Amino acid sequence: MPTTLIDRTPSAYDGPLLIKNLLRSPVRQFPNQEIVYGDFKRQTYRDLGERVGRLASGLARLGVQPGDTVAVMDWDSHRYLECFFAVPMLGAVLHTINIRLSAEQILYTINHAEDDVILVNTEFLPILESIRDRIDPVKQFVLLDDAGQAPTTTLDIADEYEALLAASDPHDDFPDFSEHTRATTFYTTGTTGLPKGVYFSHRQLVMHTLGVLSALAKTGQGSFHGDDVYLPITPMFHVHAWGVPYVATVLGVKQVYPGRYVPERLLALIAREKVTFSHCVPAILQMLLTHPSVDQTDLSRWKVIIGGAALPRVLAQQARARGVDIFAGYGLSETCPILTLAHLKPHMLAWDEERQLDIRCKTGLPVAWVDLRIVDEAMNEMPHDGKTPGEVVVRAPWLTQGYLKDPENSERLWRGGYLHTGDIGVIDEEGYLKITDRLKDAIKTGGEWLSSLALEDLILQHPAVAEAAVIGIPDQKWGERPVVLVVPKRDSLESFAERDFCDWLKGWVDQGTLSKWAIPDRVLVVDSLPKTSVGKLDKKVMRAQYQELLSR
Amino acid sequence: MPTTLIDRTPSAYDGPLLIKNLLRSPVRQFPNQEIVYGDFKRQTYRDLGERVGRLASGLARLGVQPGDTVAVMDWDSHRYLECFFAVPMLGAVLHTINIRLSAEQILYTINHAEDDVILVNTEFLPILESIRDRIDPVKQFVLLDDAGQAPTTTLDIADEYEALLAASDPHDDFPDFSEHTRATTFYTTGTTGLPKGVYFSHRQLVMHTLGVLSALAKTGQGSFHGDDVYLPITPMFHVHAWGVPYVATVLGVKQVYPGRYVPERLLALIAREKVTFSHCVPAILQMLLTHPSVDQTDLSRWKVIIGGAALPRVLAQQARARGVDIFAGYGLSETCPILTLAHLKPHMLAWDEERQLDIRCKTGLPVAWVDLRIVDEAMNEMPHDGKTPGEVVVRAPWLTQGYLKDPENSERLWRGGYLHTGDIGVIDEEGYLKITDRLKDAIKTGGEWLSSLALEDLILQHPAVAEAAVIGIPDQKWGERPVVLVVPKRDSLESFAERDFCDWLKGWVDQGTLSKWAIPDRVLVVDSLPKTSVGKLDKKVMRAQYQELLSR
Repeated sequence: MPTTLIDRTPSAYDGPLLIKNLLRSPVRQFPNQEIVYGDFKRQTYRDLGERVGRLASGLARLGVQPGDTVAVMDWDSHRYLECFFAVPMLGAVLHTINIRLSAEQILYTINHAEDDVILVNTEFLPILESIRDRIDPVKQFVLLDDAGQAPTTTLDIADEYEALLAASDPHDDFPDFSEHTRATTFYTTGTTGLPKGVYFSHRQLVMHTLGVLSALAKTGQGSFHGDDVYLPITPMFHVHAWGVPYVATVLGVKQVYPGRYVPERLLALIAREKVTFSHCVPAILQMLLTHPSVDQTDLSRWKVIIGGAALPRVLAQQARARGVDIFAGYGLSETCPILTLAHLKPHMLAWDEERQLDIRCKTGLPVAWVDLRIVDEAMNEMPHDGKTPGEVVVRAPWLTQGYLKDPENSERLWRGGYLHTGDIGVIDEEGYLKITDRLKDAIKTGGEWLSSLALEDLILQHPAVAEAAVIGIPDQKWGERPVVLVVPKRDSLESFAERDFCDWLKGWVDQGTLSKWAIPDRVLVVDSLPKTSVGKLDKKVMRAQYQELLSR
Repeated sequence: MPTTLIDRTPSAYDGPLLIKNLLRSPVRQFPNQEIVYGDFKRQTYRDLGERVGRLASGLARLGVQPGDTVAVMDWDSHRYLECFFAVPMLGAVLHTINIRLSAEQILYTINHAEDDVILVNTEFLPILESIRDRIDPVKQFVLLDDAGQAPTTTLDIADEYEALLAASDPHDDFPDFSEHTRATTFYTTGTTGLPKGVYFSHRQLVMHTLGVLSALAKTGQGSFHGDDVYLPITPMFHVHAWGVPYVATVLGVKQVYPGRYVPERLLALIAREKVTFSHCVPAILQMLLTHPSVDQTDLSRWKVIIGGAALPRVLAQQARARGVDIFAGYGLSETCPILTLAHLKPHMLAWDEERQLDIRCKTGLPVAWVDLRIVDEAMNEMPHDGKTPGEVVVRAPWLTQGYLKDPENSERLWRGGYLHTGDIGVIDEEGYLKITDRLKDAIKTGGEWLSSLALEDLILQHPAVAEAAVIGIPDQKWGERPVVLVVPKRDSLESFAERDFCDWLKGWVDQGTLSKWAIPDRVLVVDSLPKTSVGKLDKKVMRAQYQELLSR
């Protein structure tokens, strides 16, 4: 006979899943562990705990209430990490401002998020000054300053960060509240329209931290443990640096925040601080691996997750040649972000290098707790045969509920109980996802889906190619046909010959790597490729730019 | 200005934290990984997924509804693992019957838990037969049988497990429901009164799995990763084998279930299956390390968590001598159970063996997410100085809400928002807890707390001592004075001399390890020590037995 099964008054006993619970243990257990900020500052986890308390007290003193929004404009810093904790622990919302947006877009996000306080690095004062008259009223500004000199500004600065902390109480008695309380907001920029705000609750950030931590614990390869040294190289304003600073803190590892990304300084930090774990986008890794001082830097203990764009095989090869434990990861701003990681399974560690590279460059295995499917338009699941594409849809305990104050786009995001990523992928028998295209960039020719990403990856292996993009153009006979845009390497600008390149591509057909119908009809040599504000190829713009030319 | 912060209709988007979500990824990603059952059976994760579906269908066919209770009486087996998933995934409650209880106690728990179906191993049929007339009506029995022959029994057997599975549908479309739905119930036996039922929800088991998984990911030492091979040696009926089978499944590791614990067979399994990760109580480890065939077994890749009782230093030394990565863990039935693990911090791995042993034998560091405090009676927190004792109280996302249908004891368990463990401990500057006593067994002499556990640990280092217990007896002058009960080793029975033993103890005073006032007033040589049904020292019985003798 059923007895009462459900505790209908959840759950004084369980305790809500709050961000404050991520901070307690590491501060107590690793008080002397270091947090390094570039060349400026070294502090400890004990300091972190104390400064988070002071920051929260200080913000409260400035009038910040639960439900208010506190925005940050800073390079990656220990201050940013402190905000990751203090602002949500107050019950307020942390808005991480994308400093790469235009001043107009930044203005839009500040007003849309209804920021109450803005913490701003001296370097970004000019941006705020340029838009100050149009920022909705009653903002307070707190200055983040490395130089230690009060800058001249037309903004009315309420306080300086270190002064605010020094004058505030290091209390550590943060309140309980609903785990569904919003903790963070930031803006994602697609290729169209205004920036869209995504948001995450305490529960979602806690579950993402736990889920990613468990995924990174899986094997020796690509692992993240207490004895690692962590340097994030994706910005803290963008999906909380993929949420990894929270994971790093829970693990109690030494953390290194680089400030602004300067390749030489990043390499120096990796060497000096003995960094073993990072994440970055392909373009940054490319910059590091081609920088002159890389030859003096030992990267053989460095593990790095590559995300933001597909990991080109040729880049992975270059990294492996320096001993880097490189592997891809995948997610969206809307998914907090991590959904998959391209870890090798234990038995694959015995495979040869080339076969391992196939895995490392896949999109990855879904992190446990992520219910990831590839489906057709009717939400039927596609087979896991490594060939049949479908749209990637997901459920997980850490997906945004939608776009802030934008019910229309939110509804498009969630359909049939799943978040629709807009990405097309295949899943192989081992369970690895490989993204083949963005849904809106997909190319269908002669009834077959062509993977523009796979073709681009292949083309990047050509010795004279720096960048490449494959787009589809309308074709009366085949529906669509692929066209490739190529940016030659600087030293090949003069010598790049379209004919040689086409012969080279045909060589892959002869080898069986490429289908004959996948050979692009046209190769256009261009100076550069249009990109979005976060550096992704903007194929919508390319199609518009080249449509006329190509339809001739 | 605050906008609406809390999603008041939680949380179609988050998805409830359900046990089914622990199973999906590993079955998909590690379909060929093995699950071994003693010498009988080898199956795969693919089989596990399919059999869980069949078991759920089969139980539904027997009439099991959401909210019903399904009980299991089995040795540790692949079947038990299947029940860990299938029963809660149906929305039913899994009651894991403690097969070490007396038939009368088992009867009590079956009726108290209101079991609807009982899955019973052939070996336990006689117990059920002896109480069948007093089991509340409308039970169905399913037979678990390794011999493959239908046994003769007076019970009305509804089906045999394998036949039930074979005739049922391997569906894998389990429903969503509230994460606060009760998933498991089992009974804990204190030293007094009737067994008490504790219970855990889906959310609690998921959070325990995630929390423990993250704790075990922390360092190379004492770690649990995808390439480990797992053999549990604490019973699956007791707090779900410490919840580690759920962790093992999420990690996708090879799992080995031993059936009944026979030292020789356990050692053979460790060797044959290349086991690298286990958990057990000190008594079992002692049996393994003193078994003749241990010399032929390589234990140098074996990691083992010791719990259930303090880890004696002398036992830890013996294990270390064989290369075992041994460390203590701590928790209660009421806490799901794991609260702390005595991992070494990365910088301690450079310490010498003796200093490492100090850490390995502590009670441990709280797992992240566990808010563990030592407090006085007014709930004031005691300093972390390694000396000042307090009662251990905890909050965590995985603590039982109380005892089943027992509001009075439940209220005693939860006070001031914390679960009271009834254990006394100290916390050192590094954050490690060391349990010094049970609250009810604590000894206060001359105004000072004396740790009976620390004294027992010391006494066990005497070469002629097999077992020891320190208890307090009333004393007019000092309040209480310690008395030690000693069971000599078999080969020292004749030669054990109380006087020599006392001199040996005084030697520790001279060395500064022991305070003079902590030397017991009396040493009683006894044949055996009274224990509870789960093998813990029963000091209440000792005090009663020896009170008269000792007060003379």
